[in-house]
Amino acid sequence: MSATATGAASNADADALLHRLAVWVSAFRLDGPELDSDVRSRLRAAAIRSIIDTVGVALDGTQRPAAQTARRLARMQYAPGASALFGATPADRADAGLVSAGAAFANTVAAHADDLDDTCYVGIAHGSAVVLPAAIAAGQAVGANGRDLLDAFIAGSEATYAVGRLMGDHLYFKGFWNTGVLGAIGAAAAAARISRLGPDETAHAMAIAATQVMGLRACLGRLVKPVMAGRAAEAGVSAALLASMGIDGPLTILEGDNGWAKVLNDGQIDPTALDRLGAPPVLVEPGVAFKMYPVCSAAQAAVETVCELLRENGLSGDDVAHVLCDVTPLVHISLRYPQPQTPAESQFSMPFAVGCALAFGALTPNQLTPAVLADPALQAAMTRVEMRLDPEMAADPKAMELYPEGSRVTLTLRDGRVLSRFRGVCTGMPTQPMPDAMLHAKFHACADPVIGLTAADTLLERLLTLDQLDDLAALFPA
Amino acid sequence: MSATATGAASNADADALLHRLAVWVSAFRLDGPELDSDVRSRLRAAAIRSIIDTVGVALDGTQRPAAQTARRLARMQYAPGASALFGATPADRADAGLVSAGAAFANTVAAHADDLDDTCYVGIAHGSAVVLPAAIAAGQAVGANGRDLLDAFIAGSEATYAVGRLMGDHLYFKGFWNTGVLGAIGAAAAAARISRLGPDETAHAMAIAATQVMGLRACLGRLVKPVMAGRAAEAGVSAALLASMGIDGPLTILEGDNGWAKVLNDGQIDPTALDRLGAPPVLVEPGVAFKMYPVCSAAQAAVETVCELLRENGLSGDDVAHVLCDVTPLVHISLRYPQPQTPAESQFSMPFAVGCALAFGALTPNQLTPAVLADPALQAAMTRVEMRLDPEMAADPKAMELYPEGSRVTLTLRDGRVLSRFRGVCTGMPTQPMPDAMLHAKFHACADPVIGLTAADTLLERLLTLDQLDDLAALFPA
Repeated sequence: MSATATGAASNADADALLHRLAVWVSAFRLDGPELDSDVRSRLRAAAIRSIIDTVGVALDGTQRPAAQTARRLARMQYAPGASALFGATPADRADAGLVSAGAAFANTVAAHADDLDDTCYVGIAHGSAVVLPAAIAAGQAVGANGRDLLDAFIAGSEATYAVGRLMGDHLYFKGFWNTGVLGAIGAAAAAARISRLGPDETAHAMAIAATQVMGLRACLGRLVKPVMAGRAAEAGVSAALLASMGIDGPLTILEGDNGWAKVLNDGQIDPTALDRLGAPPVLVEPGVAFKMYPVCSAAQAAVETVCELLRENGLSGDDVAHVLCDVTPLVHISLRYPQPQTPAESQFSMPFAVGCALAFGALTPNQLTPAVLADPALQAAMTRVEMRLDPEMAADPKAMELYPEGSRVTLTLRDGRVLSRFRGVCTGMPTQPMPDAMLHAKFHACADPVIGLTAADTLLERLLTLDQLDDLAALFPA
Repeated sequence: MSATATGAASNADADALLHRLAVWVSAFRLDGPELDSDVRSRLRAAAIRSIIDTVGVALDGTQRPAAQTARRLARMQYAPGASALFGATPADRADAGLVSAGAAFANTVAAHADDLDDTCYVGIAHGSAVVLPAAIAAGQAVGANGRDLLDAFIAGSEATYAVGRLMGDHLYFKGFWNTGVLGAIGAAAAAARISRLGPDETAHAMAIAATQVMGLRACLGRLVKPVMAGRAAEAGVSAALLASMGIDGPLTILEGDNGWAKVLNDGQIDPTALDRLGAPPVLVEPGVAFKMYPVCSAAQAAVETVCELLRENGLSGDDVAHVLCDVTPLVHISLRYPQPQTPAESQFSMPFAVGCALAFGALTPNQLTPAVLADPALQAAMTRVEMRLDPEMAADPKAMELYPEGSRVTLTLRDGRVLSRFRGVCTGMPTQPMPDAMLHAKFHACADPVIGLTAADTLLERLLTLDQLDDLAALFPA
């Protein structure tokens, strides 16, 4: 009747892709014998970098309207518990934390509210924003330590990207929003891992999450987008609880009769992708992209290039008569709002992103407000920005691999000069990593205004030495 | 930034299918001037019949493992509130109820746990099991009365089936589980209606629910199936809260760029279907099907026919050497388990359903246990049951309309006689309605063992005179 009641999985279930994945997830240990020491040390460093970045942007994100609404709703709906809300104010601290599902929900909305969180091109998803808050919330509920969190975060992240690899890029291009779709499975895997569920229950947790299919790309530019990420985290955490209580899901849901491949992905699935699980881990190779700017990753290369051209040539935005951005298909389908009406739409708008660079010389989370959007200087700058799909980039079969969100920026100056530069990858992309110092500066820029410099220093130190943390409760005191 | 912050919807949004639907939902009143008195009285009667049936099967369903797990999880996760858990035991009553999302979740799982709840062939969904608990839970949270509940239940049901009509049958046949998929939108509509949200917020509530796409048909035969229905109800109730707090969703998600038609339904959508909204209401025409047996609706016609042939000919199941069921495509894809291993699989198994009729002369919720499934008499009977797709029924373009789950039963008796009968529709189908007396007897059979005959009598009386109920709190004291 349930995974527990029926004992071992049937043969068909044991072969199911989710079950194979669950066997790996439930056994994964960063200190396990399978990893050679070089991979282990690179994986630890990569995981901690993602964790630091995600916590930082989540703290900044708590200031955004979607996150504040989510936190208010979570406080209304969920029971008190051991799982903390990130960046709780002194007033909040008077209350207890929430049950894991509620904290995972609110914290993930915060982590994705800026759209400044990391992205992985394997799966085309913001994995960390969903997996990390789920792992922390579930871990705080069971008294886990820092080492458990590292294991669960890595296992959940790799599960997210493994399913992404199974499905291929088609899933995203077809119209699903992979952060929610894959993220719910990754959150379930992370919550199951940190709760020490066995492989059968872990598989059912992922199957339960997979039945829910969280998100369509239609949510881009709407406040529901970060909320949807939050619901994926909640679904994953709840799925792990449901599985631990004997609820079973369809383990062949990825490849089976009425599963993802057939129903969601026009029949496409590559089961051999699972053979690459952890070998090497996706967090190490190819790695994730860290963002410099609080807008869709599709705009990052163009904004950086504009800033660079202005700086190198001693120009201000006023010197620029026109900016043309020739872009890849992924950029083209993602930046859907030439004339954004809201901050949420602005995050998917090349004119907004480049317009901020022209008008203010920068693009920061503080600019995601209706007042900034209405600023006449920005509005004027936006009219000078044009984006178009580049036919050559669109035809290049290697584009997704080499420069998924590349952009050729051409500035026409008021004095008639033309400056042009192609940037395939921006700083923060795996092939052009953000240095630690820059990552830590970003953390402080995000965290200091919310929890103060001293607390941010302490938190950063704890995250850098996560292996040594005895109790996750010390991370974010409820 | 949100529906509230931006004021009126943009023109594109006002034309969006979900917005048009929301305008109708938020304005719907059973006592409104649009309905002529004959339709009004038939609609009231139909709604009350569905409400009675859903409450009854939900009470019985509270005894099933999935519902008990869901209730336990809900009590762990959700904050106390005004929304009652159906059929709470005296021990439960010592506690308060839960917030609306938690009660909607647990009660919907109970309502669908028996698979004895009503079904609508417009949308191919168990609408009531999701919409009713959502409406009751949201209504109890705002102190609504019986008339509000009738309005919200009807509005939510019609919204469910309207989206079903927009998408057509393809959605279900493709592999989505419409109860969750459409139900989340219907639950959002019902919760929005009973919370008196305006049309813009109601539209965003449905859009938020629609981004989540709750359920694939792969969940048939798994305990997650009723749990998924519960999560759809929860998603709808939460979506209404999120919309009321300013979260916006993509209003064109059904017909738009990356919306349901394109991403989920191979491009299929019939916007003209919305012109038929409420004219007449689907609850009246064609109406919903009430079930006699606690298994997938696809097995109902065959079981009833077997029982009938045995009774009419004075036979026992032992007299039958072989039962052949020739069936429609909908039956064929739904009853996936020729050799079910669990009660949940048994609900999607023609050999189980007909086997119970042969072995026990009946098919009741009490038979959904591992012990009954293991009973040698049943196991022997099951080996004598065969199901196959009938090519003629499959080729008949009118099959889905006239006999969606019809079956031709051929009994070969041990004495060599052959008895055969085709039944297109079983008792309880809209074209062969279950009489009120039978519906009320079913209610008592479900409710009495859980809350006792006296309380069941009181509850039935309150549901029959729902218009006069001043406070929904009186329905299920928390």
